[in-house]
Amino acid sequence: MVANLPPLPTNKNNNGFPSSHIDSSLPYSSFIHFNRGDKVALESYWRKMSEECAVVTKGWEFMSYASDWSNSVCWFMTPELIDAIKRLHALVGNADTDDSHLVVGNGATQLFQAALFALSSSPSLSPHTPINVVAAAPHYSGYPDEADMVCSGLYKWGGDALKYDKNEAYIEIVNYPNNPDGNIRTTPVVDNRYGCEGKLIHDLVFYWPHYTPITHKAKHDLMLFSLSKCTGHNGSRIGWAIVKDIDIARKMTRFIVLNSKGVSKESQTRAAKIMEVLCDSYQSLRFDGYNKESELFFEYSRRVLKERWEKLREVINKNGDFILHNKFSQRAYCNFRNESSETYSAFGWLMCKKDEDCAIYLEKKLKVVARSGNRFGSDPKFARIEMISTGDDEFEEFLDRLSNIKEIN
Amino acid sequence: MVANLPPLPTNKNNNGFPSSHIDSSLPYSSFIHFNRGDKVALESYWRKMSEECAVVTKGWEFMSYASDWSNSVCWFMTPELIDAIKRLHALVGNADTDDSHLVVGNGATQLFQAALFALSSSPSLSPHTPINVVAAAPHYSGYPDEADMVCSGLYKWGGDALKYDKNEAYIEIVNYPNNPDGNIRTTPVVDNRYGCEGKLIHDLVFYWPHYTPITHKAKHDLMLFSLSKCTGHNGSRIGWAIVKDIDIARKMTRFIVLNSKGVSKESQTRAAKIMEVLCDSYQSLRFDGYNKESELFFEYSRRVLKERWEKLREVINKNGDFILHNKFSQRAYCNFRNESSETYSAFGWLMCKKDEDCAIYLEKKLKVVARSGNRFGSDPKFARIEMISTGDDEFEEFLDRLSNIKEIN
Repeated sequence: MVANLPPLPTNKNNNGFPSSHIDSSLPYSSFIHFNRGDKVALESYWRKMSEECAVVTKGWEFMSYASDWSNSVCWFMTPELIDAIKRLHALVGNADTDDSHLVVGNGATQLFQAALFALSSSPSLSPHTPINVVAAAPHYSGYPDEADMVCSGLYKWGGDALKYDKNEAYIEIVNYPNNPDGNIRTTPVVDNRYGCEGKLIHDLVFYWPHYTPITHKAKHDLMLFSLSKCTGHNGSRIGWAIVKDIDIARKMTRFIVLNSKGVSKESQTRAAKIMEVLCDSYQSLRFDGYNKESELFFEYSRRVLKERWEKLREVINKNGDFILHNKFSQRAYCNFRNESSETYSAFGWLMCKKDEDCAIYLEKKLKVVARSGNRFGSDPKFARIEMISTGDDEFEEFLDRLSNIKEIN
Repeated sequence: MVANLPPLPTNKNNNGFPSSHIDSSLPYSSFIHFNRGDKVALESYWRKMSEECAVVTKGWEFMSYASDWSNSVCWFMTPELIDAIKRLHALVGNADTDDSHLVVGNGATQLFQAALFALSSSPSLSPHTPINVVAAAPHYSGYPDEADMVCSGLYKWGGDALKYDKNEAYIEIVNYPNNPDGNIRTTPVVDNRYGCEGKLIHDLVFYWPHYTPITHKAKHDLMLFSLSKCTGHNGSRIGWAIVKDIDIARKMTRFIVLNSKGVSKESQTRAAKIMEVLCDSYQSLRFDGYNKESELFFEYSRRVLKERWEKLREVINKNGDFILHNKFSQRAYCNFRNESSETYSAFGWLMCKKDEDCAIYLEKKLKVVARSGNRFGSDPKFARIEMISTGDDEFEEFLDRLSNIKEIN
């Protein structure tokens, strides 16, 4: 589906130039949007599983703020979602949920802010200096915007972790596979030569077997995951944190209470159902042997990613104007799939060889809207391409435009 | 249902004394909680309407962040919810939605913070002075906590609007019927003798015909409503703002995008369904004449409130230790119900005559957990009692304990 040009919605920054600058002689009637974060390519899988995943909600259900008014840490999280998350991580082997506390949020976005709140309100920190929040560039474009949104006195965006050189406390976000370039860097990078208090948030929203080999069971102090990145159900706004320290988990819960009085019970219930169906299908394969690989979610979605990556690399190699800066050498043994495999990142990290602004170039020459490298703390000669945000036809149309760019020029 | 004593959850402050201080000789085995905000008393209505309100969600639905990637202001709000909200306000006549923009949030809680963000990021304001957020005491206990949560540099809690006397810009929250005392005060109270820039947020979450006569169609610049307070579906976390200025609506949308990337589509869809069923039942009555009053939501819930209020007033009159400080003289003609009626607030605003700390007195003597007056910017001799947060049995148990307080002493 190739949509007509919509005015850019207020949530998505454009790349700094008005659409009237776009060459009107271009043969393309419509824009292709690689800047929205949806997972359209995964929809066909869930259409096949439509009935298995169906959830019915009656009129009287979910009337309470709480799921459990007793002493549970995250008292608005449903027991079904807790069980489903633990089962999913146990199946995949990507994160350890033992001896930890689960906190549900309105997406990993809200949980990231809850984590900043929890980690920056420590009594050991100076009460009047906002703590520096850093991540190694190129880093996810949302971190600076979210950290600085309301000019908090508790925390502030501190820039590229690789350049951090202050004698002040900090929070470093470690994100693997990294958004935007898919890099697998599991350890922090701040050179803490002053021995300051440093805290870590591990953003693991893409650490799932369709995107990357599962090489280890993550056991970090504070890990973030989301339904959007795992199954593609962005509209449900479900994220979860796995937190070792109960006081941090309690503070994160308090943030979510003050921020939104909890998280939609309808979404929690549906997320649990989707995870259960996903786990059931693997269990059927392993124990009953009847499930075909094509009916398994991670196999299906990995195949979509692999096919698109192979096509994109081929077109980019022929094109000559761009380089893909993803780290393709990251082949590793996947404990979940029991074979060695590559990383197929959710994003292509494209560089214009001509030293031009890559996002502007893509928009002007191809009517392709990508997110500019400067949004990721990087150079505008880079741009981020979304690999699964469009349907097959639209992705093919993108490849066609990229193949024909020479002819247009 | 009278639950066993749970440890106080982290979201609810207790009233400053450990439960071990409670007289162990009290004849009551369990606590009654009037500090949770649920609407248990409305559940029986929705059990009757359970099937009519049922919603089925299939596996492939709601996969996008957006509802409308085009130029709509709140691009993650579903068209069904927009239509249902407009229909509900048109039916009740409590708010004008014409020539305004709707913004959906994770409850009015998130929208309140979105409104603070939008109103405080005006270019006319000094960039380094947080704007004062004020409300006339007694005011909702959440305002100070939410305004000061992350020590924003844009806004900060400024206290009682009746005492505000600074030569600085401010945001005044006007809340009617007022939480906690049910007062109907539709106009702001700041005495702005310096002529500073003052902005208004009208928190109208309780301006529905079960709580109060609908005397006028509200047409304020920025109004907040929520599903929780209207129908009692707290767990869905759906609130909406009606906003006149498109730039303010856009900024509120931006806040919600940065804060949680939108609002659960499952909840939005269900909220729309519940509102539609509610409106349909009135339409059946008005146009087909077949619907009984007992099947109409606002009639049912008003009857519950009225009965509880009459019983509570009777018990309080006999008891002698307390005074109800709600304004019962606020009888008015309700345009929706076409008759003159009283306000039946969602809260009783109780005062201990003996000048004791009312919440502590209730907890120690009756094992009743209420919210202390000092949380509302008022005196601790007041406490807030929730009128519909418990089932009938538990409310009757509360009345019994209150009736027997002399015997215990």
